[in-house]
Amino acid sequence: MSLIIIGTVAFDAIETPFGKTDKIVGGAATYASLAASYFYNKAKIVAVVGDDFQKADIDTFTEHGIDTEGLQIKTGEKSFFWSGKYHNDMNSRDTLITELNVLENFDPVIPESYQDCEYLMLGNLTPQVQQTVIKRLKNRPKLIVMDTMNFWMDIMMDDLLETIKMVDVLTINDAEARQLSGEYSLVKAAKKILTMGPKYLIIKKGEHGALLFHDDQIFSAPALPLAEVFDPTGAGDTFAGGFIGYLAKVGTISFNNMKNAIIYGSALASFCVEKFGTEKLLNLTEEEIEARIQEFVKLSAFTIEL
Amino acid sequence: MSLIIIGTVAFDAIETPFGKTDKIVGGAATYASLAASYFYNKAKIVAVVGDDFQKADIDTFTEHGIDTEGLQIKTGEKSFFWSGKYHNDMNSRDTLITELNVLENFDPVIPESYQDCEYLMLGNLTPQVQQTVIKRLKNRPKLIVMDTMNFWMDIMMDDLLETIKMVDVLTINDAEARQLSGEYSLVKAAKKILTMGPKYLIIKKGEHGALLFHDDQIFSAPALPLAEVFDPTGAGDTFAGGFIGYLAKVGTISFNNMKNAIIYGSALASFCVEKFGTEKLLNLTEEEIEARIQEFVKLSAFTIEL
Repeated sequence: MSLIIIGTVAFDAIETPFGKTDKIVGGAATYASLAASYFYNKAKIVAVVGDDFQKADIDTFTEHGIDTEGLQIKTGEKSFFWSGKYHNDMNSRDTLITELNVLENFDPVIPESYQDCEYLMLGNLTPQVQQTVIKRLKNRPKLIVMDTMNFWMDIMMDDLLETIKMVDVLTINDAEARQLSGEYSLVKAAKKILTMGPKYLIIKKGEHGALLFHDDQIFSAPALPLAEVFDPTGAGDTFAGGFIGYLAKVGTISFNNMKNAIIYGSALASFCVEKFGTEKLLNLTEEEIEARIQEFVKLSAFTIEL
Repeated sequence: MSLIIIGTVAFDAIETPFGKTDKIVGGAATYASLAASYFYNKAKIVAVVGDDFQKADIDTFTEHGIDTEGLQIKTGEKSFFWSGKYHNDMNSRDTLITELNVLENFDPVIPESYQDCEYLMLGNLTPQVQQTVIKRLKNRPKLIVMDTMNFWMDIMMDDLLETIKMVDVLTINDAEARQLSGEYSLVKAAKKILTMGPKYLIIKKGEHGALLFHDDQIFSAPALPLAEVFDPTGAGDTFAGGFIGYLAKVGTISFNNMKNAIIYGSALASFCVEKFGTEKLLNLTEEEIEARIQEFVKLSAFTIEL
């Protein structure tokens, strides 16, 4: 049994109202696998970097029990680099630099030792690469979770729809759900998207929490109100990683477990934004996570006796 | 013991993507008292109308057990009239007409039979009128809930702050909480506002639910995801009316009861938007309300065993 996480492993340079970083390690697969590692100890990543990626950077993965056999290192090439600057409200940002580098011709390799994959997280990447990974697995995983974004809806909707058809859970934000479905009401949007392939749809609403749709059921998860958001980079990937990591740990797919997985994913994301980049995700304790989960429980619990 | 609701009783003409109405009865006190009537049977309103207000319109109140002794009828004058048109997303609207009419010189009269007031809902009106009502009550009510809006923050912040100082619960939306506090983070905004007088702050977030702040406690209430919002007019007033009506029925002020009151208020508001104006609020059954409450319970419940 294993959990595979595919996505970018990259360098980011981030500027927020609180400060700025040099090039630090980022990328969807980085955030997601670190988050998953708190619940499921043997996540395997599929990604590509250049030889500017240091041994110490790779050690960070292995120290968290993450298998990097599927991390290709391209000699003479550079890792994907993104630089962005957040506005004062932290809800929007400008991309300053995007250098695709190794990502331009990313051909994902699935090591033989990865073929027992039961849980597959497709982090945000071109829909073709996401699809290739599914096809290169000899057995279809028990659960495929796919994250994507408006960018792919803008430029390659057909490919995107083809990939969406193959997954079990789709995670997108509210604007993306509206774009993908052409419906303003999220209820109608979800109904449409659930006919496109996925059995579960998670709509991420940032500071407003998340909605889970499945058949006629809806779950509304709160977001933890935070006094300070230091750096939102990677919060969505952290959410997705915590989500699938928790499900891989529990081992049973059900609406109830999905609900809990969303709370765990949200808790990890709430840590992620407290520091720059992955910093806060590197050394969380079980006690810290449990205390955070308790905050979510207290935040949304009410008892009405009818 | 009594519950007093002050606010506008008015005529509205509403246009939404689904259709438009002629002049129909609206106003904050109308929505709030109808909502409250489902929980607390003897709400008393304080408001003013012109002689264009029909006996049949008043009968609607009395049929719902609402005491209209405090509803002044000004002969030879016209009722407050508002006309607005909602945009396609229903989240924004243009005001087409505002005729203050009787509201221009509204001097709220508190009948002697209202003086046993324990629960006071100050619907959205000028802060001076809201304050006058508090001062004309011989005994301070057990609970004063105040609704207000950005308009008063723009043009009479000092009066507003003076009135806010006198109340127990303030209900505003997220943009208004930011404006009132000068803080973007809602956690910081709430902390500041809770030093201005109110012991409880409710931040209404429309389709994203509501947040309740009290001391260091936070409650996040979901909004019911709706396939169709037919007409959002009065949803906030309905929420406030359901909220205070439930508390008046229960009779004890506590954080737990406030949480439940928010769920009841949200449930009533979710009915309100299903039809034009007050239509849906006129004939709700206990069974419908209980079923809606159950939807809220199912929507947000999760069970994590640590």
